[in-house]
This record gives sequence, C-alpha cells and structure tokens, in this order.
Amino acid sequence: MNGTSTMMDFLEEPLPGVGTYEDFNTIDWVREKSRDRDRHREITSRSKESTWALIHSVSDAFSGWLLMLLIGLLAGSLAGLIDISAHWMTDLKEGVCLAGFWFNHEHCCWKSHTTFTDRDQCLEWRSWSQLILGHGEGAFAYILNYFMYVIWALLFSLLAVLLVKGFAPYACGSGIPEIKTILSGFIIRGYLGKWTLIIKTITLVLAVSSGLSLGKEGPLVHVACCCGNILCHLFTKYRKNEAKRREVLSAAAAAGVSVAFGAPIGGVLFSLEEVSYYFPLKTLWRSFFAALVAAFTLRSINPFGNSRLVLFYVEFHMPWHLLELVPFILLGIFGGLWGAFFIRSNIAWCRRRKTTKLGRYPVLEVLVVTAITALLAFPNEYTRMSTSELISELFNDCGILDSSKLCEYVNDFNSTKGDDLPDRAAGPGVYTAMWQLALALIMKVFITIFTFGMKVPSGLFIPSMAVGAIAGRLLGVAVEQLAFYHHDWAIFSGWCSPGADSITPALGGVVQGCPHALLAGGVTRMTVSLVVIMFELTGGLEYIVPLMAAAMTSKWVADAIGREGIYDAHIRLNGYPFLEAKEEFSHKTLAMDVMRPRRSDPPLTIITQDSMTVEDVETIINETTYSGYPVVVSRESQRLVGFVLRRDLIISIENARKKQDGIVSTSVIYFTDHSPPLPPSSPSMLKLRSILDLSPFTVTDQTPMEIVVDIFRKLGLRQCLVTHNGKLLGIITKKDVLKHIAQLANQDPDSILFN
Amino acid sequence: MNGTSTMMDFLEEPLPGVGTYEDFNTIDWVREKSRDRDRHREITSRSKESTWALIHSVSDAFSGWLLMLLIGLLAGSLAGLIDISAHWMTDLKEGVCLAGFWFNHEHCCWKSHTTFTDRDQCLEWRSWSQLILGHGEGAFAYILNYFMYVIWALLFSLLAVLLVKGFAPYACGSGIPEIKTILSGFIIRGYLGKWTLIIKTITLVLAVSSGLSLGKEGPLVHVACCCGNILCHLFTKYRKNEAKRREVLSAAAAAGVSVAFGAPIGGVLFSLEEVSYYFPLKTLWRSFFAALVAAFTLRSINPFGNSRLVLFYVEFHMPWHLLELVPFILLGIFGGLWGAFFIRSNIAWCRRRKTTKLGRYPVLEVLVVTAITALLAFPNEYTRMSTSELISELFNDCGILDSSKLCEYVNDFNSTKGDDLPDRAAGPGVYTAMWQLALALIMKVFITIFTFGMKVPSGLFIPSMAVGAIAGRLLGVAVEQLAFYHHDWAIFSGWCSPGADSITPALGGVVQGCPHALLAGGVTRMTVSLVVIMFELTGGLEYIVPLMAAAMTSKWVADAIGREGIYDAHIRLNGYPFLEAKEEFSHKTLAMDVMRPRRSDPPLTIITQDSMTVEDVETIINETTYSGYPVVVSRESQRLVGFVLRRDLIISIENARKKQDGIVSTSVIYFTDHSPPLPPSSPSMLKLRSILDLSPFTVTDQTPMEIVVDIFRKLGLRQCLVTHNGKLLGIITKKDVLKHIAQLANQDPDSILFN
Repeated sequence: MNGTSTMMDFLEEPLPGVGTYEDFNTIDWVREKSRDRDRHREITSRSKESTWALIHSVSDAFSGWLLMLLIGLLAGSLAGLIDISAHWMTDLKEGVCLAGFWFNHEHCCWKSHTTFTDRDQCLEWRSWSQLILGHGEGAFAYILNYFMYVIWALLFSLLAVLLVKGFAPYACGSGIPEIKTILSGFIIRGYLGKWTLIIKTITLVLAVSSGLSLGKEGPLVHVACCCGNILCHLFTKYRKNEAKRREVLSAAAAAGVSVAFGAPIGGVLFSLEEVSYYFPLKTLWRSFFAALVAAFTLRSINPFGNSRLVLFYVEFHMPWHLLELVPFILLGIFGGLWGAFFIRSNIAWCRRRKTTKLGRYPVLEVLVVTAITALLAFPNEYTRMSTSELISELFNDCGILDSSKLCEYVNDFNSTKGDDLPDRAAGPGVYTAMWQLALALIMKVFITIFTFGMKVPSGLFIPSMAVGAIAGRLLGVAVEQLAFYHHDWAIFSGWCSPGADSITPALGGVVQGCPHALLAGGVTRMTVSLVVIMFELTGGLEYIVPLMAAAMTSKWVADAIGREGIYDAHIRLNGYPFLEAKEEFSHKTLAMDVMRPRRSDPPLTIITQDSMTVEDVETIINETTYSGYPVVVSRESQRLVGFVLRRDLIISIENARKKQDGIVSTSVIYFTDHSPPLPPSSPSMLKLRSILDLSPFTVTDQTPMEIVVDIFRKLGLRQCLVTHNGKLLGIITKKDVLKHIAQLANQDPDSILFN
Repeated sequence: MNGTSTMMDFLEEPLPGVGTYEDFNTIDWVREKSRDRDRHREITSRSKESTWALIHSVSDAFSGWLLMLLIGLLAGSLAGLIDISAHWMTDLKEGVCLAGFWFNHEHCCWKSHTTFTDRDQCLEWRSWSQLILGHGEGAFAYILNYFMYVIWALLFSLLAVLLVKGFAPYACGSGIPEIKTILSGFIIRGYLGKWTLIIKTITLVLAVSSGLSLGKEGPLVHVACCCGNILCHLFTKYRKNEAKRREVLSAAAAAGVSVAFGAPIGGVLFSLEEVSYYFPLKTLWRSFFAALVAAFTLRSINPFGNSRLVLFYVEFHMPWHLLELVPFILLGIFGGLWGAFFIRSNIAWCRRRKTTKLGRYPVLEVLVVTAITALLAFPNEYTRMSTSELISELFNDCGILDSSKLCEYVNDFNSTKGDDLPDRAAGPGVYTAMWQLALALIMKVFITIFTFGMKVPSGLFIPSMAVGAIAGRLLGVAVEQLAFYHHDWAIFSGWCSPGADSITPALGGVVQGCPHALLAGGVTRMTVSLVVIMFELTGGLEYIVPLMAAAMTSKWVADAIGREGIYDAHIRLNGYPFLEAKEEFSHKTLAMDVMRPRRSDPPLTIITQDSMTVEDVETIINETTYSGYPVVVSRESQRLVGFVLRRDLIISIENARKKQDGIVSTSVIYFTDHSPPLPPSSPSMLKLRSILDLSPFTVTDQTPMEIVVDIFRKLGLRQCLVTHNGKLLGIITKKDVLKHIAQLANQDPDSILFN
C-alpha cells in the first residue's frame, strides 16, 4: 500500500524517486503545483497533434469530475451500509427478530404487520429475556436483559479495539485532526489506505453499536477521504501529484460530511472552513458535486426508511418571537462553556494517556469504558437507546396524540383549536422524563471526555448534539412551564398576545432544534458551516437569526476561555506540523531571529555550484540530517544560486555512480549550465542542474516574521532562504516557524515533531 | 470626501503622506497588514500599563463587531426604505390612492378594507384615467393610462440619469465589478463615498420604479459597501488602514446581498465566492454577523408586509422524482446559453458605447431605452407589473381557488381529493398567459442587454431571474400538459404511479422555483452561493439535488462558451488591474520574460544606498514615472538592499528641504544605519532609512511565471524584484503581470490602464 505511489513514479520520471517524499514529511506545494501545470501544458499542447491525444486531453479534463462521481457513489454507499448495520447491531443488544435475525427492531415489527406506535408490543421481536426465559416480566428478566446488553456492548467494543490494534492502528479516533494535517501538506502513508478504510468501516459499526458515547460523523469523513485517496490511484493525474490529490481529499471530506449529516452544502462549507488548507474555487465546485452525488446515493439507499438522509430530521414552520433569543443565547453560553470544558478535560486526559502507563493497555481501557457506559446506560431509557434515536426523540414536537413520556401533558381537549396546542401543564411523565434526561446529560458530559481518543473510531458531533439537545429540551420545558404558571408576568405577557394560547409549543420547538448547533460550535468552533448544516437538518430557515445568535454566542464564550478548537488541540498534542491559518501571528520578531544557523551554531551547510566533488557532497550528506542544501556561486561571495533536496541528491549520486561511466569520489559536481574549466587530467564531471531548484523562495533578514508566516501559509512552503544585501545568511524551515510560534506562545517548542 | 482619510493621517504619522496611496493605484497588502499588526501590538503592550489603556484595548477589539452592527442596521434600513419607496413609485405609474397619495396600491386597498383578492375593484385606488376622466373603461381611458405610464417612466428615468450625471457619476451601474476591484486592493476615491451613497439610493428607487429591465440587487451591494466605507471613518483602526477597511467592505457586501435576497448565508458565500479577494476566517464570522443584523433589521421594517425579506418567497414541500431532473437540466442548458449570449452582447454593446459617439449622450440613451421599455411593457400585463411582482406571480403554485389567468385550468372538482390537485387541462386563460409570457421573455432578453451598463443604477439578478422564471413556467406548463394528454407514454407512466393524480402540480412547482438560479448561474458563474441563496429564498431543501444539478449545468454550458462572468468582463472592459484568482495561469514563461527592463530598454533605474545626492535622486524622480525604485549596495555589485516608493521619497525630500537644516542639492542621501564616511567639508547628509522597505519581495529570473502570478495573487503584491545569483536584474509590477496575461490570452495588453 505504502509504496504504490512511489513505485508508479518509476515508470515515467527521469530518475526514480526524484520528486517524491518520505513518510512524515511535508510536501512542497509550489513544486507539486508546478509539476501538475507542466503535465497539463504537455497534454494540451499535444492535443493538437492527433485525435487520440485530443481524446486523452478531454478525458484528462473530465477525470476530475469522474473521480468526484466515484467518490460520491462509494462514500454514499458505505455510509448507507454503516447506517443499516449499526442500526441492526444496536438493536441486537436488546433482542432478536424471530422472522429473521437480520431484521432490526423496526424492520422486524414492520414485517410482522404491526404499526410503528405499537413497537414494544410487536410479536416477532423478542428481547433476550423473552427468548431465553420465555417472558419479559420481573426482576430476573430485567437483570438478564441488562446482562445481555452489557455483554453485547463489551463484545462489540472488544472486537473493534482488537481489529484496530491488529490491522489498522490509524483507524482509531475521528481522523479529522490527521486529515487536516494531511490536507495542509503532510504525508502519513497508510493513513488513508485500503486497510484503514476496511477496518474503520467495520469498527465504526461496532463502536457505534456498542453504545459508547461516540458518533459516526468524524469517522465518516475519514472513510470518505480513504475512498478519495484510493480512487485517486485510478487516475495518473491524481496518483502522482500530492497537491492534486489533496484537492480531491478536500472534496471527499465534503462528501463525508454530506452523508454524515445529510447536508451537502454544509459539507462543502465544513471542508472549506474547517479541514481544507488549499481550496481553490475549482475545488469548491467539485466538492459541491461530490457532496451532491454522495447525498443522492445515500438517499437512494434510504437507510432510515424515511426518505431523509438522517434519523433526526426536524421541520420548523412557526415564526419566532424576539424574546425567544434569550433562551437561545443562554444555550449558546452553556454550549460555549461545555465546549471549553470538554476540550480542556479531554486534552488533559489524552496527554495523561500518552505519558503514563495508561497508554499501554488500550484494549483494557476500551473494555472498562464500555462496561461503565453500558452499566450506567441500561437503567435509563434515554441512554439505553442509541444516541441518534435519543436526538430524534428530543427533536420531536409533542403532537396531541403523542404517547411518549416526554409528551405526557395534562390535556384539556376543550380548548384545542385545530392543530395548535394550548398551554398545558406537564404531567407526571414529563417530570420523570426530565429527571432521566438530567441524569443522561450528566453521564454524557463526563463519559464523552474519556471516550474521545480511545483506540476505536469515535466522532464527537453526535455526543455534542445529544448534550445540546438534552439541555435544550430541559430549558425548553422549564420555560414552557414557567410561562404556563405565570401568564401574568410582564415578560410573558409581551410575548403571547392576549388570548392566544399557543406560545409554548413554538418555544418548545425552538429550544429543541438549536442546541446541537451550539455545542458543536463550542467544541469545534465552526460557525457558518455549522449553521448551514443545521438548516439542512432542520429543513427550515425560519430560525436563522436565533440559530446564528446561538452559534456566535457559543463560539465567543468558548473563544474567551481557550482559543483552540478540539481538532487543533489534538493536532498539537500529536506534534504534527500544522500551520494554523486562523490565528494571526502577532509578535515583532524578524526572520533573522528564527533562521538557522543561530549565532552559536556552526555555519550554514552549503554546496558550491561548481567546485565540490562527489566525496565532499557525500560527506555533507552523511554528517548532516538537513533535508536540503542551498547552492551558492562560491564560498566567498555567498551569492545564492538555488536549492537542492537531500533526497534528490542521494538518489542522483547513487544513480550516477552505478550507471554513469567515470564518476568517482573525486569527480566534481556542477550545477551550472556549462562545466567549469578544469585540468584535463581530472575525472569526468557530474552535472546535476536538473535537480536544482532555480527559484528558491528568499526573504531578507529584516523581514518581519508575520510576513514570513504568511508566506509559508499561503504558498505552502517547506523552507525559505534568508539573505542580507544579496548574500545568503541562513534558512528557515516550516518546523523552525512552528517551533518559534510554540515558543512565543509559551509552549514546548520540542512538541513539534515533524518537518 | 476624497481627502478625508489622507488628511486624518496628518495627525499621527511621523511624516505626513508617507504610507498613503494616490487615486487609481493599488495598495500594498503586505505593508498595510504589517502596519495594522504594529498598531495592534502597541495597543496590547500598552494595555498592561493603565486601566484606560486596557479599556482602549478592549474597545479596539470590539470595534470590529460594533462596526458590523452599525453596517447591518444602516444597510437593512436603507434596503427597507428603497423597497417601500420603489413599491409606491411603481404603483404611481398606474394610479394614485385617494385616501392619501403616499399609499401604494396594496396598502391603499388594505386601508379601504377591501381584501387582497379584490385588488382591482378597490374603491380608494384610482387609475389615472379614472381620476382624470372619471371612468376606466374604453379605448381612450386605456390610451390615457398608457400615456401616463410612459410619462411617469420617462420622468423617473430622466431624474435618475440627471442626478447620477450631476452629482455622483460613480453611482451608475451595478457597482459589483468596481467593488471587486476595490476589494482586490485598488483605490477609487469617492466610489464608496457619501455622495455616491445618497445619489445611488435615490436613483436606484427611481430606476427601479421607471420600469426599466433592471434589479436592485447589485446596487444594494454597492449601497451597503458605501455604508461600510463611511462608517469606517468612525474608527481609527479602519479609517487609516486600507487592508482592514477592505475586510469591512467584504462584510458589507455580504450584508448587501443579505438584504437584497433575504439570504444571510447566501450573502456571506457570495462575498466569499464572488467579490472578496482577501477573506480571512475572521472576516467570515464578521460578515456572518453583519448579514444577520441587516436581515433582521429589514425583517423588522417588514417592507412587503409578509414577514419575509423578499417579495417572492416560495415554499416547496413535495418530494421530487428522478425524471424531473430532465427539465431542470434543460433549463440549466438554457440558462447557460442565455448567460453566455447575454455577456457577449452586453459587452459588445458597452464597448460600442465606450468607443463611439453613443457614449456622449447618456441622458438621451436612458430616455430612449426607457421609452421603448415602457411602450412595449404596458400592453402586456406580465411586463407592466414590476419585475419582482412578476417573479412572485410566476412562483405561485396554482391553488384550487386561484383566480389569476395563469391558473385558469379546467377544474374537475369531483376528482379533487384534499389539497392535492388532479391533472387538469389548461383553460384558455393559461394559453393566453403562455403567449404573453413568451412575448415578455423575448422582450426581457433583448432589452436587458441594452439596459445593463447605462448611466443609472442597474442590477442584473432580477431580470435574470425573471427570464428564468418565465422560461421555467413555460416549460413547466408544457410538460404538465404533455403529461396530461399523454398519460400512457412510457416516460410518464414510470413517473406517476398508476392512479395517482398529482404529478403535475409538483412538477409545476419544481420548474417555477429553479430557473432564476440557472440564469444567474450562467451570467455571474457563482454556484455554491447561488444555490444557498435559492434555498434561503425557497425556504426548503427538498429540491437541493435538482437545483444543484441545474446550477452546475448552467455553469458548465456558459463556461464552455466563454470563461468570463459578466463582472469579470466588465472589469476587463474598464481596464482595472484585477488579478483573477479563479483562472490558473498555464503558460510556460519565466520571470525574466516579463520583468522590466527588457533587453532593448535602458537599464533599471536604481538608487545606491549611500552615494547619491539629493539632486541625483530628484533627477531620477523627474525623469522617470516609476512608482518605486530599488536601492542597492553599489552600482557595481548590484546587491539589493531594499525598495523605496516614489511618493515617500518625494514627500521626505520636500520635507527635509523645508524643515531640516543644511539639506541642499549636493547633500548625500543614505539608507544605511550609519552615515558613510565623507570629507568634513561636504554638506549635512539626509538619512532616509525609515522610508526604505527592507524586506522587498524577490524572485529569481528562472522562477516560472505561474509561481510569480501565484505570489502576486496570494500575497497581494504591487511589485516584485527579480534577481539572478543574488544580483538585482529587474522588476515586475502588477501591471506587467496583467499585461503579460492579457498578451498570452491574445488580448490587447494596453487595455490594462492602472497599476
């Protein structure tokens, strides 16, 4: 897997290996883009020669769109598969269908011709106690069901963690921090490979089914990116170019979000706002297309049987009142606080896992967390059901005929007019539900901190949404009852026009719909894409203003406490070289303060353009570990000619020694156009101009670091040379920049591990 | 107005004028951003000193949000004012309200307690013939009404063009091409000034009311940007920094679209995708906020009395069928073709206006076009009404009780079940409406070409939407009737399940809703923002897939014919220096091919760092017109030290001659840290290190132009120096780059007028 793209290069590149990258290195965006443009130019210029070349040129132009189509189809199908399997396996924890063990609860009851509302009474579906004991009543049956629930959960999570550990260690976590880093130009071979895809798909189903407090949204993005990366191998254009491949991955991420939330536009914006680094407008359109195809494929599979892309689709059509902004903003504040709290605790816990013995027992950790989750979850009906079912239930507006506990209001049918529900006092069922929801909230809040980061695939959105939806429902019902019992308060009398009796259902609807937005906002700090995702989920734009207000509040509160989102925090934890585009560099340092060599260091290792021998260069290569060397006119003048990469140099010299006659250790290497005048007795010379980068980026030593950081970010550089009055002084690499930023932020500069 | 920002600089800058720009020049983004960061650093470092400084620091941090709030409020209010006035004045062309001349038709009838459906029978509203003749029947009354309609239209447009010509020439057109250019860093003083704002607001109302085939959407963006620019003067942070001010303008553009379409998210995306150049994530959030406030303000004003932000809000809730994609794609193709045709014809006409005598009679031109439009429009009821009313009528789904001509179906009440309408044969009214709509389509298509670009404010969206909506309705009814008469065709039998009788209303709904999307897509080539705007307009996400498919088709078709959108075409027509970020530079030229001096030119004009006298420098300034000069160590070594701007140099020398003792023509100017050793008899020297840019951007002569173009685009450079082996060779300015691009595209390089 790892070597495929490297091996394919052997066929056409002038020298094998030149122009490829090592694992855990950063790509050179400028070089990659130049190479693609060269390729493109060659194809277009050739296309005038023959019909075949013309067809090749057209197919090349359309290969991008074809690739998007394939990604959309594959990502959509996988998402459908995951949804169906997870649904079935979640139900398996509670019982089995006699009509066929492959039916899930709903499907089973539907098969046996009972209606949905009688779900609990359907005949073909047997809970484990009914199956084993023959009845479902009594304490013993309850304990048996409890036991089976925990056992299945443990079984699923054990299988998941063993698969991840054994076959694809990269399949754990949400994958979004790594994908962000990869999109910014880092190389992690195998992270988006076929094993990761297979294992992540399987273990995601297992992890979701085990009832752990995690969601499938983040991992679905990872799965979609794996699809994108693997499908890239079908097209030379994308297989051989790291920059082009990253454009495809950006689009794949959009497709992933599109199927995860059923939100194609939100997916494109998520890719733009959160994960992508280089996002030209062309990619915007392609992402758009991929997201569209993926959503369409998923809709055709129809995993939830409701013609929707998600289980928890809601519709709002009631207008809102200005005062409703207050609970929205309150929820925003809560969301921001929870987000900041979650990020801090989770990062602290993950750091502990990394640095202490804890990290050595991932399987045990998963089993313990699963056991605790399952033991706590079963007694409470709101945690026993799957998290997306919970969200779906919380989003439900209470209709007049609704029989669920949450809707057990004291009905006064006389005052009902049409569809509008009057104000109603809450019945005992609502109070019980409130208690259970409060407990579920506390449990979710804490258990999620320990779950995110374990060695199983785990997404954050669904737990965040659940926390938000619970908090929203609690607040909603509280305000509703407050308004019911205190009609006369000035605040409420302004709200509901005299005589109107339907203020509360609207408010209930509001507060249900938004909070997941807030929480995800607090945790990941995306705003625009988040609101768009919410619109696509709620299918209505009535609540645009309150939703936006809530999302902004949440972001502000979370930002005030800590500036990093959860993904950035995890990137930093892992030491990946990610140059954040959101934070402005605000210190007054200059390029000369950051460049190597420092004053106390030995002088910069340089290569002269026409006076060093093969042996000299090999000595430099062996004695240093730099990934590239500047080439100068002469040691005296220090005038910069170009830059040569270590990897290219090694490969070229090795190749020349093997295949070129007369190249010995004393052969002079020259990078100029013409060979230097040397005595005729000297051995034949080695011309290496082809591997010399003649347009290295340079800045002067007086350039403020803020500009240097900007250049690194916007152009995607790996290194930049520093000059003073035309003379070469030193070099700044991406790692130097990141270390400098870490140092100025009072963080450990050695936490940056890769270049 | 023009000098305000320059004059304010006098107070704090070390030297007056240094660091400002001349009119019709491009700003230096890097320098502006650096200056802002310096300012920010100073405030934060001072904030630890005193409470007052701390408050200043906090207020500085929040000034951006406050500014957004103000922009949102002002833009929303102006949009409301424009909507209300335009509505009233449009109705004034047909008659007047007796209850008070300031009521519009609808308002008047509402006042006189008649219902909306009886609009034509309401008593208080008098058409001109009723008012003058006392009755509204007969040929003479018709001719009188016709006459008054044309007279009012001519009066409005005459007033509009005279106001534009007399007070604010910049107020004409849509303004979006210029705003794009300004946002990319160009300076056009007064373009966003208070006179432009006032005149544009007034003339926009007049132009819309005159019945010309134009819309208010583009000009509203211009109005919002004027608001943004004017409000910037309240805050030093934005008043004094051109880069920061452009961030605000990006957000203002979003607010403009937000109120124009009632689409806050679409507005943000429009700003991102279409108009903005530098769009950091911080701006994304602020734009979001401004758009939100603007929409909220407009909603509070409620100009249409329907609690919506637009007149033509539609809702779709029916699921769609796969086959419906066919008409959508057909409309997409039509949209693309129309877009390409429109752009070509409009640009050809505008070029003719610029180059022939035609351009000298703007008032006459406006009057002639208005007269033709009014004369053609009055007899056809679909063109007589305002374009937004037309769109609103076309979007209306035919209910069972709908009395309009478009809905005159042969009703078979027996087969009606609930709300679903059965298939129905079209009645004579529908056929008449179809003919009238077809004529309206032809008229709109042609008259818009001549209207866009005249000396009145004119937007393109509404006419495009109208063309699309008419085409959509025509196609919709055609397919509907085809399906009605040919139930048995294989294609339809797959579509409507046997026995179901409600395929057509759904289809009708589909085809009504989308076409404006397509057409705007073909004309302006925005895709994602377009689809989002459509969602916000249609208030439903059911049709996401067909809308996206239509928008993509439209874009592809239009792209295949001509790559430029209408705004880019107008930018090129005006010769503005706009470096398009969407088009990839695909030629294999090098920096040395583009740089000045060329081989035949005199050598590069340079300044040495410590050996030229004031007189030498003044000679250079007088003999050349370059906007800046490279500073080198010495003429012999040609090693680059920095870059100095002509404007700064002139101001500094003038200032020194006036205020500094002993500065004469023979005084030596030095840019080094320490003064050069000179004989004691020489006059006192002038140190100008403070105006020297010590970190000019350099590239080597071998750098491919694609990389140079990328650097110019991403970093927002004005110029870049070219070196070879550390020696200065030449210079590339933004104008050189644009000329080079124009030349390679076989366009006239001299069409680029500004730097």
